Order: sequence, then C-alpha cells, then structure tokens
Amino acid sequence: MPNDPVTEITSETATDPATHPLVVFTPSGKRGRFPVGTPVLTAARQLGVDLDSVCGGRGICSKCQITPSYGEFSKHGVTVDQDALTEWNKVEQRYKDKRGLIDGRRLGCQAQVRGDVVIDVPPESQVHRQVVRKRAEVRDITMNPSARLYYVEVEEPDMHKPSGDLERLVTALEEQWQLSNVATDLRILQQLQPALRKGKWAVTVAVHQGHDDNHPQIMQIWPGYYDGTVYGLAVDLGSTTIAAHLCDLKTGEVVASSGIMNPQIRFGEDLMSRVSYAMMNTGGDQEMTRAVREGMNALFAQIADQAEIDRALIVDAVFVCNPVMHHLFLGIDPFELGQAPFALATSGSMSLRATELDLDIHPAARVYLLPCIAGHVGADAAAVALSEAPDKSDDLMLVVDVGTNAEILLGNKEKVLACSSPTGPAFEGAQISSGQRAAPGAIERVEIDPVTKEPRFRIIGSDLWSNEDGFAAAVATTGITGICGSGIIEAIAEMRLAGLLDASGLIGSAEQTGTPRCIQDGRTNAYLLWDASADGGPTITVTNPDIRAIQMAKAALYSGARLLMDKFGIDEVDRVILAGAFGAHISAKHAMVLGMIPDCPLDKVTSAGNAAGTGARIALLNTEARAEIEATVQQIDKIETAVEPRFQEHFVNASAIPNSAEPFPILNSIVALPDVNFNSGGNDSGEDGGRRRRRRRG
Amino acid sequence: MPNDPVTEITSETATDPATHPLVVFTPSGKRGRFPVGTPVLTAARQLGVDLDSVCGGRGICSKCQITPSYGEFSKHGVTVDQDALTEWNKVEQRYKDKRGLIDGRRLGCQAQVRGDVVIDVPPESQVHRQVVRKRAEVRDITMNPSARLYYVEVEEPDMHKPSGDLERLVTALEEQWQLSNVATDLRILQQLQPALRKGKWAVTVAVHQGHDDNHPQIMQIWPGYYDGTVYGLAVDLGSTTIAAHLCDLKTGEVVASSGIMNPQIRFGEDLMSRVSYAMMNTGGDQEMTRAVREGMNALFAQIADQAEIDRALIVDAVFVCNPVMHHLFLGIDPFELGQAPFALATSGSMSLRATELDLDIHPAARVYLLPCIAGHVGADAAAVALSEAPDKSDDLMLVVDVGTNAEILLGNKEKVLACSSPTGPAFEGAQISSGQRAAPGAIERVEIDPVTKEPRFRIIGSDLWSNEDGFAAAVATTGITGICGSGIIEAIAEMRLAGLLDASGLIGSAEQTGTPRCIQDGRTNAYLLWDASADGGPTITVTNPDIRAIQMAKAALYSGARLLMDKFGIDEVDRVILAGAFGAHISAKHAMVLGMIPDCPLDKVTSAGNAAGTGARIALLNTEARAEIEATVQQIDKIETAVEPRFQEHFVNASAIPNSAEPFPILNSIVALPDVNFNSGGNDSGEDGGRRRRRRRG
Repeated sequence: MPNDPVTEITSETATDPATHPLVVFTPSGKRGRFPVGTPVLTAARQLGVDLDSVCGGRGICSKCQITPSYGEFSKHGVTVDQDALTEWNKVEQRYKDKRGLIDGRRLGCQAQVRGDVVIDVPPESQVHRQVVRKRAEVRDITMNPSARLYYVEVEEPDMHKPSGDLERLVTALEEQWQLSNVATDLRILQQLQPALRKGKWAVTVAVHQGHDDNHPQIMQIWPGYYDGTVYGLAVDLGSTTIAAHLCDLKTGEVVASSGIMNPQIRFGEDLMSRVSYAMMNTGGDQEMTRAVREGMNALFAQIADQAEIDRALIVDAVFVCNPVMHHLFLGIDPFELGQAPFALATSGSMSLRATELDLDIHPAARVYLLPCIAGHVGADAAAVALSEAPDKSDDLMLVVDVGTNAEILLGNKEKVLACSSPTGPAFEGAQISSGQRAAPGAIERVEIDPVTKEPRFRIIGSDLWSNEDGFAAAVATTGITGICGSGIIEAIAEMRLAGLLDASGLIGSAEQTGTPRCIQDGRTNAYLLWDASADGGPTITVTNPDIRAIQMAKAALYSGARLLMDKFGIDEVDRVILAGAFGAHISAKHAMVLGMIPDCPLDKVTSAGNAAGTGARIALLNTEARAEIEATVQQIDKIETAVEPRFQEHFVNASAIPNSAEPFPILNSIVALPDVNFNSGGNDSGEDGGRRRRRRRG
Repeated sequence: MPNDPVTEITSETATDPATHPLVVFTPSGKRGRFPVGTPVLTAARQLGVDLDSVCGGRGICSKCQITPSYGEFSKHGVTVDQDALTEWNKVEQRYKDKRGLIDGRRLGCQAQVRGDVVIDVPPESQVHRQVVRKRAEVRDITMNPSARLYYVEVEEPDMHKPSGDLERLVTALEEQWQLSNVATDLRILQQLQPALRKGKWAVTVAVHQGHDDNHPQIMQIWPGYYDGTVYGLAVDLGSTTIAAHLCDLKTGEVVASSGIMNPQIRFGEDLMSRVSYAMMNTGGDQEMTRAVREGMNALFAQIADQAEIDRALIVDAVFVCNPVMHHLFLGIDPFELGQAPFALATSGSMSLRATELDLDIHPAARVYLLPCIAGHVGADAAAVALSEAPDKSDDLMLVVDVGTNAEILLGNKEKVLACSSPTGPAFEGAQISSGQRAAPGAIERVEIDPVTKEPRFRIIGSDLWSNEDGFAAAVATTGITGICGSGIIEAIAEMRLAGLLDASGLIGSAEQTGTPRCIQDGRTNAYLLWDASADGGPTITVTNPDIRAIQMAKAALYSGARLLMDKFGIDEVDRVILAGAFGAHISAKHAMVLGMIPDCPLDKVTSAGNAAGTGARIALLNTEARAEIEATVQQIDKIETAVEPRFQEHFVNASAIPNSAEPFPILNSIVALPDVNFNSGGNDSGEDGGRRRRRRRG
C-alpha cells in the first residue's frame, strides 16, 4: 500500500521545529515543515514538487530518486545533519544491487524526514522535465505527454458489494492517482480479469489523458509492475519525403529517426499533379491515400526495428503536413484545394484513433494532426509557428519554410501574418539544366573568384573543395553528378558578385566578362562550372534559363514576404529564420545577394532546420502545446497571395536581382554588387534596369 | 434563412396588447405576448413550447404543424378571431398539395400572429412526445432519442477568411440549432465537401447527442433536406432467444419486431454449460462471441427487410442481457462468472460503437448496454427495473422475471433489493417427463374437475378446450405434443386443488384419489393427462419426479423472494409483477396455489410481458432513462443468494406446496386446499406434513 499522506501539513510558523523539520526542495525552492517520519515523496507531493513516481510510493519503480544535500545552506537558512533522513534501507539496497543507483541518490518513497533537509530533484526524476533543444534562442520542451504509466493496486471482488473489476480499477486510479472518470475500451476489458489475477490485484496501466473534455482512457494493461516505457511518433509528412522521429514518452528522448520517399510520388511529383490525378482518375484519391498510409506503416516498422521496440508500444503520433497531403492522408478528396476558393474540408486540428488511418501501431494509439492555417498554408506551417514561436517574439520575425511552396510567417507578440507562395520546384534542383535533388554527387557549395572568375565547389558527400588536394579521389565513388538547390543559389549569387551576371539576370558573354567560362548558349550565355566531357563525364553549366527559373522562384518567395511586410506596415524585419531542409543548407549571404529574403543583418539570419518536424515533436511531447498552437492558428492573419493585387506587383518587381541602389542598404554594406549590364539591347544599363524592363512586359 | 427570432420578448404586462397579441399554447398552457408578425414557431421557441422543426422554420420539413383554435376561451381569458393568424400561404398550400395536411392545421413557421390566439400543438408535432404503453399502471415513454435530424444552411467558403467546410458547418449548427462543439469522424469529413456543394450549401445531418460529456457527433449527412427518419433497435439478448424491436427514433413507433434462437445454443443449452464450454475449449469464448454477433447481424438484416428500410439507417441500439450473455457478447471470457465471487469484468453501463461489436448497421451507430446489477443479476434485470420502476412505487412491489434464473426485485420508493435465484429449466418445460418448450402442440392451460377428477386442457395454437366441439379438428395439424411450463404449473396446481396431490408433493394412488387417471409409476404415482397411445400418439402424464422438479424450481423462486422480504423486514407485498415470456402466460391463481409467489391478492398479481425488452425500448427512446437506470442500479441493494444461509433455510421450507394452514391467509381465502396426505408411510398426515418431513431430511 502507498504511504498514507500526512494530513497534518502546516505552515512553518505554526509547527514545532523539533517535531516538524524543514524540508527544502531544489531546484524549485519549495519548502515546508513535516512531521518526523514523513517520506520525502509524500512531502514533495504535498508541496506540489515535481517528483515522479509510477508505483505510487511502493518502492517498486525507483522513479522518485532524489539527492539529499548535507552541510550548511545559508541560502535556505538550514543546516543539514548526516542523519537528516532515515537510514538507507533494504528496498533501496535491493534496487541498487539489481539496477544500480548513482552514489548519493536515495529513493524518495523510502527515505523519511528526521531533521531539516535540502533535497535536490534531479531532472530525470521530474515528470515535467525539460527536453533541451539545440538552438539557444528557442524554448526547451516541457514534458507533458499524452500518455503516462500508473501502477495501481485494485481491491478484490466481494460478493456482498458486487461491482465489476473495471469499476474497482477505476476507483483505485481515482484514489491512488487522482484520475477521474477513467474510461477504457473493449480490448482492455477483455484483458482485464486475467491481468488483475496474474498481477495479484496489482497492474500497471498506460493512461491517455484524453482529448478535449473526454475521459482519460486506459490504453494498455500489464499484470503487476511494468518496468518499461511507451513511445510516440513525430511525423513530418512532406510531398516528397516522410520523416519520423520515435520518442520515449517518459524522457522525451528521440530514440530513432528515419525517413522514406512519399510513395505518392508515382502519382505526381508535385501537389497539383496529385490533385489532378485524383480529378482525372476515379478512386485516384483513395489510391493515393492507401499509398501514403502503407508507406507510413513501412516507415513505422522500420523505425521500430531500428529502435528494437515493439510497434505496439507506440501509443501516440503527431503529424504535420501541407493541406493536400493532410487531405490525402485523411482520405479526403483534395479536389477543392485545386481551385479557388481553396476550401479545406476541415481547418481544425484532428484527434483520431490510429486505426481510423489504418496505422499499425498500438491498437488504441491516438493520432493528432496540427490545424491548418489556410487552404495553402498547412499544418506544417502551424508546426513551424509552434517551433519558432513568432507569436512569442519581441523581435519582428520572418520565418520562411522553403519547399515547392514557401510558407511564410511574419510577426511578433502583437500579430502574426501567414501566407504561402508558389515558389515551384527550382529551389529543389528541378527545372534547372544541370539540377538534381540534394544527394551525394550534387554540387552544394560554390565560390567564384571575383578576379579570375574561376569557380571552386564542394559536393555532397565530401568536405573538400574542388581545388583542394585529394578532391578527385574523394569524389571518385559518387562522381560529380549535378547541382542541387543550395548549389544553384550559391552559384548564381557568386556569379552576380563576380560581375558575371547583371541585376536583370543576364549572364555576360566571354567578351563582356573576360572569362572563357562564359560560353554562348543559344541567344544567351551560360557559365561553365565543371566540364568532364573529355573523360565522358557531365558538363555542368548555369544557363540563362536556369537563372530565370531561380528568379521566378525567389521572386515568389520574396514577394510573399514583402506582401506580409506591407500588411504589417513595416519595411524591415529584425530576424529571418530559414526553415526546412533546404533552409538549413543555404547561405544567408547568398540568399540575400539573390534577393530571396528581405534586407537583414547577416547574423540575424538563422536556419531552424526541420522546424515543422520540431513542431510535431513539441506537440507530441507536450500536449499543452497542442491547445497553444490551436489558439495561435486562430489568431494568425491569413493572407491569400492568389487574390492580392500587391502580390503580383511585388512579384514583377522582385524578379530582378538586387543592385547597388536601394532598397538593400544592409546588403550593400556587406558586399559590393557590381553595376554591370549585359542587356544586348545596349543602353538600358545601370540601376534597376531589369526591374523596369519586367514592368514593361507586365 | 430561418425567421429571425423576435428579440423584443417581454412579459404580458409590459407590452401594449394592441401591438402585442397574447399567444396561448395548449396543452402546455405556456403563454406570452409577441409583436404582430411573429411566426408561431418563433413564439413557441421563445416560450420553450415543445414544437418540433427539422428545417429550422424554412417551410421545408412541415414538422411544426399546429392547430389554431377560434372562439372564446374563458379558461385562458382570450377571444380568438378568425384572423388571429396571417392567411394560409403558398408554402402551406404547396405542402398540402404534395403531402396532405389535416384540415385546420397550419405550419407554425408560416402562420404569423396577428391577434390573440390559442394554439394547440398536436402530439406528433412535439419533439418530446409521449409514447403510450399498453398497461395503464406504468409510465408512458417520453421521446428523447440519442439521435435527431437537423437541416442547416452553411456559409460558403471565403478565401479571405479561410476556415474548413466542417468548421462552418459546426458554426451553423451552433447558430441555427444551439448545438455546441459538434464533432464528427473521418467518414463524414470525407463526404462533407461533395454533400455541401450538391445541397447548395444546405445539408441535413443526423446528430448523436454523445455519451456523457462527449461532444454531439454528426453521424450522417445528406445534401439538402432529407425527408426521412432514423431508426434504433431495442434488443433483448436472452440465453435462448434474441428478440429485437426496430423503432422509429422520431415517433417512437415500433416498426418491426423479430426474434431468432440464440446461435450459442449449440455450445450449451444453459449459461453454465456455455461457461464450461469456454473453460474447456481454447478460444471457446471467442467462438461463442462470434456466433452471437453473427446471429445478431442476421436478425438485424431480417428486421430491416421486414420494415423495408436500409440497415444503415439504424443509428442506435440498446441491449439487455444476463451477465454471461453480456460478457460473451462483448467478447469477455465469462470464466469469472462461473465461480465465486462471480466477479463481473464491468458492472457499469457500456456505451460503444456498433463497429466494436462487429454489428452491421450504420457505420457510426452507437450501442448502449444497460448496467448489470451483480454477477448473477444482469442488465436484463436492470431493464426490468427500468420498465417496472419499483423505485418509483408507493406500493411495495415484488417483480419476478422467471427464466432459467429468476431475477427478483423487491422494493418501493424507499429501497429496492435484488437477487437472482437458480430456478433451473423446469419452468421452461425441461426436466419434465412430457415437457417441451412453449410451441404449437404444447398443453398450456389445464383444468381438473374437483369432483370427477377429469382434466380438460388447451394447447398452444388453438382457443378450444379439449372437451369442446371441434377440438380434435383444431389440433389436427399440430397434434398434442407435450406440456409446456405454464401447462405443468396449472396441471400441478389443479391436481392439488382436486385433491390428487398432497402438500408434500406426493400424487395419490387410484385408490387414494378414486380416479383411474392416477396410475402407478414405479414406486410413486402419476396423473394421466392425455392418452393417445391407442392411436400411436403420446401419453402425457404428470409424474412424481415432475412434481419434484417443479417443487425445486418454485422453491428457488419463492425463497429468493422470501429472502428479499426478510431483508426488507416485511411479511407481505402489495403487488406482484410477473415478467418475462413465461410470466405472461402463467395464471396468478395457479402460481399461488403452487407457492411460487408470496401470498398476495389475486388482482394485485399482474403480468408485465417482456419487461426486459420494454426496458431496452425505454432506454432506446429516452436517453435520460439511461442515466436514470444507472443511478437506480447504484442504489439497489444486491443480495447474493449463494452465500445467504437464510436462502438455504427458505429453500428447504419452500419445497412443500401450500396447505390450508398459515402462512397463506389470502390464498386460503380464495381456494380450498384439500387436507390430503398420500405419504405411504401412513400417519404423518395433516398440516405442514411435507414441510416437517423435509426439515428432517435437511
């Protein structure tokens, strides 16, 4: 039986210090006087100190480890004697022999208070421990997962007071764990009677805290004490790839990560071609739904194998995705998302059973999908908002998540705006003459000597620059196969800085630039980055159509950001966050030289990595974050770029590449933007030429 | 759009009668003044008058039919002119032409108030209409089903205010129907967008009111206005038979009834043999679970066919059954119910999805099982309590539901006690030498002439007595095949009244009784009821072992009742209710002559028919009754006969048949109980002989 709570808890002044020693907990600083003989766990509970326990103080689970401190603590006004706690006991020794216990640690349910004492609760003994994130500028994750384990002792049946075994379990959970109105499903009811008897009227249950005002729900039952944990999945369901993190729901630790290609790719590379596939083929949406769910199950099997756990221990999963993937995953025809007014079937968050999505994890596992922001701004953008929290920022933050569509958030504590902008696939290496996906062999970094106009580069899979010793050997296995999104950005920006490209986006001729690497390519020119044709290898060039494709993409991105800035009524932002895999690899300087992002001090441009995935992980580990992002999404002002005349206007203006004039004062203070003009028409040179030309066309 | 509510509702005194005529509703008597031009439906809603509407006042559904009364109403202090309401309008005429409308009826949403008026709301226009039960002494059922239809108009999507179609539907349900936080499942979400567009932004939804504190749930969606109803099932899942009533959830009407044999019979006739089957055969419980669910689906298909409705329109089902059937239906091994302490896996009510039980009705249909009272007293007994409501009775009621087990309830407003008593199958014709189930050809009524000792009888399937003209022809098709439970009761009671049987249960010899119908049968005697042996037909006798079997059964029943009376501290009851199919067929007088039930005035002994089935129907049609019976069951004192020494004592005493002495004063005032004694031992004659002899044996 658990230790009886000491009911006679009183304030420090009202009790006799001789019989009621002072107990001070760190790091919380919570303190109180308790009768001699009070177990530390009981004192912690009564003071509301965050000290874990699964077995409820029965000396079974060892989750309530604490470290008493001895000596004088002037800060707390306490001197702690060596005998402030009762002596190390058999239960503690048994646990130490069996599982090991760090020296100095005690079990909070065994050690009882004898004198004034200072007790430290180490992080791993805290229920709501903090999961530290790598980036210093963001909040840690506070553990508050949807499911927890409870060990509980159940009253035996009595013919004279007939009540079901379930009802006695529910009563025990209420009495021993203060869990009210716990519900369960048939599956548990079918296992309950043997489990109770096998466990001699003690069981461990996994309880899901329930959605909204639902009852907490028993998801799993083990006879006796279950010395294990349960897991959750944070899944970023992208158009191209599906990435999953398997997390220990007790510690918050990521125990395995894995990814697969989205099997829907066979129905269309980009979202709109998948929407078309559904429109053109009866049952096409269901085919794609099946494909993505099957892929998901394959991924989950893979990640469980990797972590060497039973898939049935995965009791929760959080998904983030764009609206089309959201609908296809849920089995909703995305037809309406393919045409104005881009009506979502549902914009709210979704709390479902895994079985409703045919997911093969725990049979009662829950699934949570973050809310969508708008028809073009999905749950992935909401996850980015959760991870980067512009709504909690004093600074005015611009967050861009670059993919086939760019999701853009702009805001601070006062207000957050969101939009999506159709950047197209150029940033992912598609529609580029030598372009390819980011994979080994792809050029990812480029430098061009401003004097010699000679390039050097690095490929994915090697840390060597192409002009360094050993490069040829290092790339022998992968070869040099093409150029990926971050590579093309750097190449173009470097060309611009080396004076090989003018602000309108034209590449100069060999004559104009003085380098034979600028070669004629039809009616325009191209820059030769790598030529292995002599050895039968590829020739990698940056052509003028490549420049145009990137100009279109960056114009879409920039004009989305600019539109939000207009709506916000500001001209500059304090910080820029580049999210997404692509965002993690591009250089801030090169992005600014190209005019992808608004003018901003370079040290204020940071990469958030897979912020959408991080948002999913936050929502998985801390259920309070779910309500938080649901409320935030309600507050976000959604801007639909497709119907904003200013977006078109910005787009036309933004296709040019920045020049030495306004509106890029910060950029101009960092780099020298050559005032070249390669317009074959001749005299239309100088500032803003490209911009004016585009305007005439528009 | 619906008619705008008249916000300026004011008390009678505060408004000008000239501009605010008085509207009086009958039968509720609710009244108020409303501005000229207020639709009657609006006035009704504002006064809280129970006037139905599915379309919300748009002139589509015609559910809000009312009857204005004209003339002088001194009772209400109103004189109603012919022009008290606006004129009959086009919408009403269109409806009348299309569907017909009773003369004098108006549509409440079309007719507007012009002068003082008295408005009658006919029963079929009331949401919470009363479903009248046949028996005068019981309460009518107030309609309050779990699911209702709502017609709703939904806002179209707007790019500038992106929100999902579902969110706008939910908002519309809140605004137009005051339904808060409506939830739904993926299936509806998958159908939502096409339905809204096909219905031109109007749909009809079936909304389940939700269990406990869950959200109301959209179960079904139809584009535009759905001019139909939804259905529910009330199912009495017995050990032997499964009976179902299909009810219209709008009107409460039973539209079809049907029954099948419980397919589990092949695993064991009685409950304990099924429990044994599960114990002896691995997976045996699952086999029985599958069998009963398959049988259920066959029954539901049959009943839907019979009513000519689509099974998918069945959205709710209520089940009552004994504890073993309860567990087997839910897929719980009944092992624990086969041994003390008879622990139920769960005693509470169950709210499930039909899919969890593999039931093939509406895919989102809900299932409700009434709570069990104890390990031997099931949801069927709870249903009897709901139907017969001893807890609401001023009289002290004894309710016995006779089957293989008898469930017995005793109580009044103050207190209700319950127990179960193992009567065995004798009352169902089993263990009786010429016994059979109640089926055509079985003797069900018996009379024995006290002078001639000659019997006459009736069989199931004919209204003629065996000594009436035409009997032979009437029974030619069925034959006379045996004697059923009610027949054996009457036969034995009539034998007792005719002096052929003594109080100890011995049949006299031909010599002792003076009739050749008493024939020797081994060491005892038998009474010859029917002899067709000359024609090769059966010989139907009542043997002394038959008497013993019935004595055991009736002793169990009587001692259960007696035990509860002891616990209650009383010696007589005010009323006896015989429930169950068997209870419906036995004669009160004969039951009392046999000593099955305690002494009670004959006119206070009534049959309730299938009270368990009626309880299921009440819980189906009125969801408030579910909470009511759950609370009642909590209050019922459960008595476990198996561990009550007094039960054994009563049992021993009760095996004798009443004699002319105490304790049966009422019985003795009705009939003359002959003081015969056929004990071959000779002198142990007279009052209470059997009882004393049994005591010696005990």
